[in-house]
Amino acid sequence: IADRDLLFLRRHVARLHESEMGDLLEAIQPEQRRQLVSLLGADFDLAALTEVDEAIRLDIVEHLPNEQLAAALGEMDSDDAVYILEDLDQKDQEEILSKLPFTERIRLRRSLDYPESTAGRRMQTEFVAVPPFWTVGQTIDYMREDGDLPESFSQIFVIDPTFRLLGAVDLDRILRAKRGTKVEAIMRETNHPIPAEMDQEEAAQLFEQYDLLSAAVVDENGRLVGVLTIDDVVDVIQEEAEEDLMRLGGVGDEELSDTTIETVRSRAPWLLVNLLTAFVAASVISLFEATIEEIVALAVLMPIVAGMGGNAGSQTMTVTVRALATRNLDIHNAWRVVRREAGVGILHGVAFGLMIGLVAGVWFHDPNIGGVIAAAMLINMTAAALAGIAIPLFLDRAGADPAVSSAVFVTAVTDIVGFFAFLGIATWWFALR
Amino acid sequence: IADRDLLFLRRHVARLHESEMGDLLEAIQPEQRRQLVSLLGADFDLAALTEVDEAIRLDIVEHLPNEQLAAALGEMDSDDAVYILEDLDQKDQEEILSKLPFTERIRLRRSLDYPESTAGRRMQTEFVAVPPFWTVGQTIDYMREDGDLPESFSQIFVIDPTFRLLGAVDLDRILRAKRGTKVEAIMRETNHPIPAEMDQEEAAQLFEQYDLLSAAVVDENGRLVGVLTIDDVVDVIQEEAEEDLMRLGGVGDEELSDTTIETVRSRAPWLLVNLLTAFVAASVISLFEATIEEIVALAVLMPIVAGMGGNAGSQTMTVTVRALATRNLDIHNAWRVVRREAGVGILHGVAFGLMIGLVAGVWFHDPNIGGVIAAAMLINMTAAALAGIAIPLFLDRAGADPAVSSAVFVTAVTDIVGFFAFLGIATWWFALR
Repeated sequence: IADRDLLFLRRHVARLHESEMGDLLEAIQPEQRRQLVSLLGADFDLAALTEVDEAIRLDIVEHLPNEQLAAALGEMDSDDAVYILEDLDQKDQEEILSKLPFTERIRLRRSLDYPESTAGRRMQTEFVAVPPFWTVGQTIDYMREDGDLPESFSQIFVIDPTFRLLGAVDLDRILRAKRGTKVEAIMRETNHPIPAEMDQEEAAQLFEQYDLLSAAVVDENGRLVGVLTIDDVVDVIQEEAEEDLMRLGGVGDEELSDTTIETVRSRAPWLLVNLLTAFVAASVISLFEATIEEIVALAVLMPIVAGMGGNAGSQTMTVTVRALATRNLDIHNAWRVVRREAGVGILHGVAFGLMIGLVAGVWFHDPNIGGVIAAAMLINMTAAALAGIAIPLFLDRAGADPAVSSAVFVTAVTDIVGFFAFLGIATWWFALR
Repeated sequence: IADRDLLFLRRHVARLHESEMGDLLEAIQPEQRRQLVSLLGADFDLAALTEVDEAIRLDIVEHLPNEQLAAALGEMDSDDAVYILEDLDQKDQEEILSKLPFTERIRLRRSLDYPESTAGRRMQTEFVAVPPFWTVGQTIDYMREDGDLPESFSQIFVIDPTFRLLGAVDLDRILRAKRGTKVEAIMRETNHPIPAEMDQEEAAQLFEQYDLLSAAVVDENGRLVGVLTIDDVVDVIQEEAEEDLMRLGGVGDEELSDTTIETVRSRAPWLLVNLLTAFVAASVISLFEATIEEIVALAVLMPIVAGMGGNAGSQTMTVTVRALATRNLDIHNAWRVVRREAGVGILHGVAFGLMIGLVAGVWFHDPNIGGVIAAAMLINMTAAALAGIAIPLFLDRAGADPAVSSAVFVTAVTDIVGFFAFLGIATWWFALR
């Protein structure tokens, strides 16, 4: 495509929606990417960059002249502009900001002053605000005449002379009201203004709980500084859910465009922790070397006990971690869920213990082996259930993210208990006879 | 709370937001729940039921008289009403529908006619639609006068006399335009009307891709039948992400309010499948009983090889499953990602192989054991990486949901390859010497 056929490119590519443009950029080679962007020049809509991987975004932005960036950013919604600016290094940020007109610069700098992942970073600083004594007619006329409105909005805000937030009016309320109605008569008091310092995840939860479409963001003095819209929140919700899934799977914030070396580095720490627990489990086995030497069947069967426990534990853990993340699990019902999981562990332990015991007894022509493995299964399945719920709960209480490290600890418990119970019971039982 | 202090209840509880009411209902005991609902009577906002677990919803709805249900449903947004109705059995559905006024009944029945999890089921059938030749002034006057508008809306639709969808106008565009402007002049042609039969997941993806706030839903003839709003879509996105996480963890559609027996039943099938693969792995070990009898150290170390492979495989699998779910992985980049994962597997295999080999060699005072386990680790980490990406890709191609069954197969591969490689190499090497 990028054979410098400028006319063709202008006609087709420049007309794509920003997210389609983003997909296109992700699909092609790095050199083609830079060529395409520089060929399109001012026709290239920077908003497409909010739709691509961080690595690709940085690569393109670094190859664009700062003048062009500044011009393009000045025309974008402030939240998208901040999204692109925040990844740049301090020097480039300053240079680009200094090229922007005064009001834009102030706005962007204020957003960038809030810490990463807060509502203040994600908010859009363009909004429509009117005083409470205006009538609906005045408000509509104001909107008809003022050219400097945000690109799209679904709410207008009502503020006092010091910019303090009084309330909000959905656009449909304005359209339904008579021209003479005062704005304060139809405004809703905002019960949930979002402090700019609030974590974006908490803000997203407010949106979800109250089915909000947009919400005012206020500074520490209750003054309106921006608006957070649902499309930003959808991204946050998606990211948070994805984060939990990735962390449970033992992978961090990696992206599909990461290189082999980056991936090796980001995944190695988790494997290393697992290696340590694996050695602990191995040393448990080595306690019983003498027994295994005598009865090799134990070595054949012991991974079944540990493995089944691990799976049952990870089932319980998945449910617990997810319930904690969605705030569905709290003091009110924790005790009931713990009792239920313990019940599930015991029942599964009895059922699968009998099943495995029967198969193992027949396989090795020894009912003793069947009995030993059945007993070990019951113990390990119960331990798995308790570990699966207790470990995430404890980590959550201790202020750690249960999604990150629960899996390691749960597997460690089920391996160690599994090997110890199975080999220990076997040693004791066969010594008795 | 539910000591029949009606005045207190009316004053405090009835004023709660529907989602707070939902949380309250989830926190209290079943009997208290029914008492509370019947005490509140007509003051109870049924919308709170859209915020609770399915089991609790059914329980409450079944204890409400059908007359009261019908009256309450008639006042709700149609999408919420359908959400509550769809869980009821055919007989109750019919009885309640027959008690509703004609237009409401037709609307709800049409939504219920669409299959579950489609856009048609989730849509709201209340919307504002005007002909293209109306002016902005006419439209505003119409909205001021008509009492039968939806509770809130952010878009109005433009239709021809046969209800065919022509376009949509955001409310802010209307407010900005002069009264004399024709609606067709400011409408956007709808590029992405959502067919009522479209799966809700696909619809959610359209919302995300194009940052939509609401979208028209059309029937097979292109006629406007409803509107899908972002708040419904947020729920869908959340549910889909949660589903993947739960499936990867080997748990199905269970809810926190399920009983012990329900939980035992829903999780047992997955454990059973794992049991079968565990027996296959055990039978691999049993091939090498003679070798283990001679060198017990092998039994001590073999879980390390299998376990590390399992963890590495599940890292790759998590990334792959998530990338497939978000449609980030396709033919364009699949080959690159496969190469990367293979590279990661080999590098991790070399690094952890050397580490484990060294520790094992020192532990058992035998460099041969160290060499054998290092070689086995390299083989199993590579196999883990390939299985971690190939199995989800294959399942996806075959039309199965990779989140459901990938984990079982990946663990099976890493266990079997791990035991076979380690014990096989050991048998061959020690026989040579």
